[in-house]
Amino acid sequence: MRVAGLISGTSVDGIDVAIVDIDERSLSLVSHATVPYAPEVRDAILAVSNADTQTRDIARLNFVLGELFAEALVRTCSATHVPLHSIDLIGSHGQTIFHEGDAVEYLGRRVASTMQIGEGGVIAEHTGILTCSDFRVADIAAGGKGAPLVPFLDYRLFRSETAGRVALNIGGIANITVIPAGARSQDVVAFDTGPGNMIMDQLAPPFDRDGAKARAGKVNEKLLAELLADAYYSAPPPKTAGREQYGAEFVKRMGIDITTAAELTARTIAISIDRYPATAEVIVSGGGAHNSYLMERLAARLPGRRVFPSSKLGVDIDAKEAVLFALLAYESRRGRPGNIPSATGARRAVVLGKFSV
Amino acid sequence: MRVAGLISGTSVDGIDVAIVDIDERSLSLVSHATVPYAPEVRDAILAVSNADTQTRDIARLNFVLGELFAEALVRTCSATHVPLHSIDLIGSHGQTIFHEGDAVEYLGRRVASTMQIGEGGVIAEHTGILTCSDFRVADIAAGGKGAPLVPFLDYRLFRSETAGRVALNIGGIANITVIPAGARSQDVVAFDTGPGNMIMDQLAPPFDRDGAKARAGKVNEKLLAELLADAYYSAPPPKTAGREQYGAEFVKRMGIDITTAAELTARTIAISIDRYPATAEVIVSGGGAHNSYLMERLAARLPGRRVFPSSKLGVDIDAKEAVLFALLAYESRRGRPGNIPSATGARRAVVLGKFSV
Repeated sequence: MRVAGLISGTSVDGIDVAIVDIDERSLSLVSHATVPYAPEVRDAILAVSNADTQTRDIARLNFVLGELFAEALVRTCSATHVPLHSIDLIGSHGQTIFHEGDAVEYLGRRVASTMQIGEGGVIAEHTGILTCSDFRVADIAAGGKGAPLVPFLDYRLFRSETAGRVALNIGGIANITVIPAGARSQDVVAFDTGPGNMIMDQLAPPFDRDGAKARAGKVNEKLLAELLADAYYSAPPPKTAGREQYGAEFVKRMGIDITTAAELTARTIAISIDRYPATAEVIVSGGGAHNSYLMERLAARLPGRRVFPSSKLGVDIDAKEAVLFALLAYESRRGRPGNIPSATGARRAVVLGKFSV
Repeated sequence: MRVAGLISGTSVDGIDVAIVDIDERSLSLVSHATVPYAPEVRDAILAVSNADTQTRDIARLNFVLGELFAEALVRTCSATHVPLHSIDLIGSHGQTIFHEGDAVEYLGRRVASTMQIGEGGVIAEHTGILTCSDFRVADIAAGGKGAPLVPFLDYRLFRSETAGRVALNIGGIANITVIPAGARSQDVVAFDTGPGNMIMDQLAPPFDRDGAKARAGKVNEKLLAELLADAYYSAPPPKTAGREQYGAEFVKRMGIDITTAAELTARTIAISIDRYPATAEVIVSGGGAHNSYLMERLAARLPGRRVFPSSKLGVDIDAKEAVLFALLAYESRRGRPGNIPSATGARRAVVLGKFSV
């Protein structure tokens, strides 16, 4: 086997490369070289290598979160009477601490990046189970935005030969995955429709149970019309809504009430789904699926379509994201890609994640 | 296949766990739960998740260094006429930006940690070659210090049925791997002997070519005796010398000259090797192996032993660390452990690194 070894040492001079032919008996150096770092790269490395800085907290937290993720699994197994040793594989997304899906200028290069912590090697060691982690990296390396990844699960679970379907997830932001009847993966479209629970949650914290407060009020039609005029809703996909778009500042500036917020949410979702007339079913997951008033308003704006919770198809509405990373780990273990390039913008479908034994 | 999916979302509430049975046709949820974060853990995560902080630089740098490592390999291939496509596997150590092999108190836990950047997923994508990275993590997860890893290479390369050998690497710090004749891996001992080139390099920057300046001077015997009385040199292994031990402050405080520095280096190495009388050969690598004066002084302090550069056994004295990570990737690919517990302090030998396709 011909193997390349790469390292940059603590002197931060540059990258040592060795190309080595290795077999079970011997090892012979084919060639080697040192490629120096540009001064600005060296400076950037030294700036983050100071042990008194945030780097230390990230490194420690990466290991602590690895332990906490392992313990969360052990506890869940125990509480739900699933033997830990019956689990063959773990897919751990970790905790995102940075995500920049669109490339920016950095050290003279264009670079997109993402960072999840919760060390997979620690999870594997503490559970004794093969662990796949760092799912978003390979998609970004292949030119994608590293998100959304959920369309893969939607496609796998909800694709139908006969029915066009929309998988709708209502979290803080709402997003849809459109799966035409008989779709191939490249036919899948996915994007954020606009607000999910975010505005309503701010107006009735922690959340408006069953949409009772929204149901009791009245829509401010003038404000609604003004809000719906936002160019975001008519822009073609791909598009991503930021949490900052519907935060405290928005609520204050617009003077929006909870009934109008619910209506804005339902309408902007419906407008997006209406772009895809050949879809007969809307499968809802996420916290918003618990809001019966929102579900009614959504159904009212989507006549002719069946709107129902994903639990009807066996997918718990609150467990979808965790299920996604179980599925992605399964696919990676089989050596198959897990991103959907039409959703993330990647150049190609790639196998996601890294395995820790 | 039974697979667990784990994620904590951007709301940083806690860890969602889903246990799922998956096969090629179907997917069924076995159980799920959310395990909340303790408030201090949530606070620690939010503190490092601010996009305006060092986290952003680390995330971006991780991706940029991945590209630079890939390019370093491509350039080396080109310069040395090795076709890139002839390489089967890459082992990339990356750039260490934090290492804390001894556990500290953090968020109410005892935690050791390490962080290398230079994203393996980026290297794999840019080269099209299977890449193994993050070698130190699994050893720490198994209770080790994540270092030293080089004894594995020394054992593999230099173990002899008939000769006891010492592999000596003279970098900034000097370290030895002691491999008794006919040793099993658990018989290997490894530790830092004390200064390597560090003191000499400071006194004749960037380095004293062939030791010419040291050879021209005279040893300050009184100062040497005083320095050799340092308890570090007589302490039993395992032990690690820090770079801070022999930095600018040391040089200034001690008023040491380069000839005495060379003698201190040679003597402290010799003292360490003398603890192992059943070793007949000393195999030298690292920058210090180029210093002919240092090599003479070392040989003079080790009568009865053969002292020679690793290049005599086919290992380029400057390429050893990069060769190590090629070998460790090879071993991991074969599913075999790469740490030596007697050197790192790990509870057991573990497979190192994570694979990016």
